[in-house]
Amino acid sequence: MIRRLAVVGLGLLGGSLAKAARQRGLAREVVAVGRRMEALTAALRERVVDRVTTDLDEGLAAADFVILATPVATIEALLPKLWQAAADGATITDVGSTKGAIVRSAERLAADRPLAFVGSHPMAGSELSGYEAARADLFDEALVIVTPADRTDPVAVKRVSEFWEALGARVSTMDPDTHDRAVAAVSHLPHLVAYALVEAVTRMDSSCFDVAARGFKDATRIAASDAHVWREIFLTNRAALGEALAAFKASLAELERLMAPESGAALEQELDRIRQIRSRLE
Amino acid sequence: MIRRLAVVGLGLLGGSLAKAARQRGLAREVVAVGRRMEALTAALRERVVDRVTTDLDEGLAAADFVILATPVATIEALLPKLWQAAADGATITDVGSTKGAIVRSAERLAADRPLAFVGSHPMAGSELSGYEAARADLFDEALVIVTPADRTDPVAVKRVSEFWEALGARVSTMDPDTHDRAVAAVSHLPHLVAYALVEAVTRMDSSCFDVAARGFKDATRIAASDAHVWREIFLTNRAALGEALAAFKASLAELERLMAPESGAALEQELDRIRQIRSRLE
Repeated sequence: MIRRLAVVGLGLLGGSLAKAARQRGLAREVVAVGRRMEALTAALRERVVDRVTTDLDEGLAAADFVILATPVATIEALLPKLWQAAADGATITDVGSTKGAIVRSAERLAADRPLAFVGSHPMAGSELSGYEAARADLFDEALVIVTPADRTDPVAVKRVSEFWEALGARVSTMDPDTHDRAVAAVSHLPHLVAYALVEAVTRMDSSCFDVAARGFKDATRIAASDAHVWREIFLTNRAALGEALAAFKASLAELERLMAPESGAALEQELDRIRQIRSRLE
Repeated sequence: MIRRLAVVGLGLLGGSLAKAARQRGLAREVVAVGRRMEALTAALRERVVDRVTTDLDEGLAAADFVILATPVATIEALLPKLWQAAADGATITDVGSTKGAIVRSAERLAADRPLAFVGSHPMAGSELSGYEAARADLFDEALVIVTPADRTDPVAVKRVSEFWEALGARVSTMDPDTHDRAVAAVSHLPHLVAYALVEAVTRMDSSCFDVAARGFKDATRIAASDAHVWREIFLTNRAALGEALAAFKASLAELERLMAPESGAALEQELDRIRQIRSRLE
């Protein structure tokens, strides 16, 4: 049982965290720290949180569990302030989609003041954003990757993992760099490609959208995601995304090479091999 | 009211056509022409069709409405035989995903024997295939593109359009080449890209699939599509697909160019412009 849960950032993820923690009675008190008074007062009115503040020091005082749920670029920038404001003995995690840089920053800070930090990445986004879109069931059955580094306190890993499980999520642990490569491949690359697919149609002729069916809509739904969030994700995970992009271009080039009547059989064989891999996914 | 409806090819589309026509009472008699006895006997047993045959001449005799629902490469190859076997006055359409080559073949044949042919493309696929996956409601609310050419008989266009509408579909007409460019952009390109996305992950590390969430699954669902069908679609629409692929690569290169900290604001602006276009889609 958490005595005082501090949620920093009350957007889709932070808001959903607060709602889920409240609904499941995981914390005696929930404090929200944010910048937009609109979201804060809405959460207060709905009794999702007990107290709200725009001041980090005030919000973190006496909190034994802290979750940083701001956009990913802000997380890294906030860490030094958070390290000063956090109470002794607090367990701290975040929800950033890219983990390497955040975990390295936290390790540098921990060299001066040891705090129990471990990174998290709940794979429970949505093309929607903001507190308005927050839902108590966002983490039900979702996968949350917890990313301990070499020097991370195992107690912090256990506490953070149990917190996510208490919200209904499945937890998997992975080192931060392996995590960043994996999400580059299965999340960041598909987002980038979806944006490019939509833009390709406008370059061909926007009237082509008139014949777009479910296949196109499913394939590009993630291109309706928040631009600010994704700018930050792309830039914070640039190196791993570059690697995924190179793998994608090589795969596409190989399919293109087979796109000739004389290599039709080889093309079909390749498509079928990929189809089988994809079919195993769900 | 159709007296005798002949459906050539009893896979997902042909089977669904037969089921929908039967359910809605659109034809007094439904005849299926196919190669796989398994599908034919299943349809006969389920009373979806009244007669089955593996012989095209027999199947088309006295049919006043004929639908070619074989895979797209087979449609073009079947047209000359169909042209000989069809009854005088028959209205003929097909369900091929690529229209230019089919419509040109039909026009050449019509120069010798005028038959009322007009191409159709029901945008109602599925990653499933075969008669087993056929559903009477497959065309409900689906978009069907009917593709008259310059010399197409307007009466045929009207009859074929009314047939699709009677199955519950919305009909849009478009000339064959405009159609081929449009589906290259919103259907064939996204399929090709989805195959490449799945293959990119296997090239990075197959264990990355473990963290794949809904976004990846939605974006790559179409990569579970039938390899033989898609080999034929890619090859029959190679020219337009090449054009769409070039537009896609240019779009991707532009996003990559902006993928640097100093152009973060421009990247966000571009992502947001694309997000708005995508958001208007549904």
